[in-house]
Amino acid sequence: MTIEKIFGHVLREFRTSNKLSQEKLSQECGLDRSYISLLERGLRQPSLTTILLLSKALNTTATNMVSSVEEFLNENIKNGIPDKSR
Amino acid sequence: MTIEKIFGHVLREFRTSNKLSQEKLSQECGLDRSYISLLERGLRQPSLTTILLLSKALNTTATNMVSSVEEFLNENIKNGIPDKSR
Repeated sequence: MTIEKIFGHVLREFRTSNKLSQEKLSQECGLDRSYISLLERGLRQPSLTTILLLSKALNTTATNMVSSVEEFLNENIKNGIPDKSR
Repeated sequence: MTIEKIFGHVLREFRTSNKLSQEKLSQECGLDRSYISLLERGLRQPSLTTILLLSKALNTTATNMVSSVEEFLNENIKNGIPDKSR
């Protein structure tokens, strides 16, 4: 699983746990809804500024979002296989 | 101070505390030395993958590097003025 895909998964988790639509998140953080969609599908790579903007709108920190990505990466390395179900 | 400048400052701190030259860091993480130079001068924005690659070569985590950026941001917000001396 690519970094893009893992970040997309993490972003979707944070967004849905905040009960926000992509449209609403887009309004909150000022990023295009289509860009958020691309990020969630792992088709774009976020810059640090993008992560900071998203985290603010998602009531968390960029540190927390990146930490979730690294946890996911470490679990996959530990298990030896990418988790295709997620 | 821009996010790029803050990240550049953090990157340089981590690199020098690891006693690595830009050249050596470049070899360790596979990124161009000129790109590392641009990042440190705040002239480029790192992607998530770039932060992950750098953190591995710097014996830290992307989480730690992003946390340092957010601490710096929060201090500047608290003090009300960007710290131009750093």
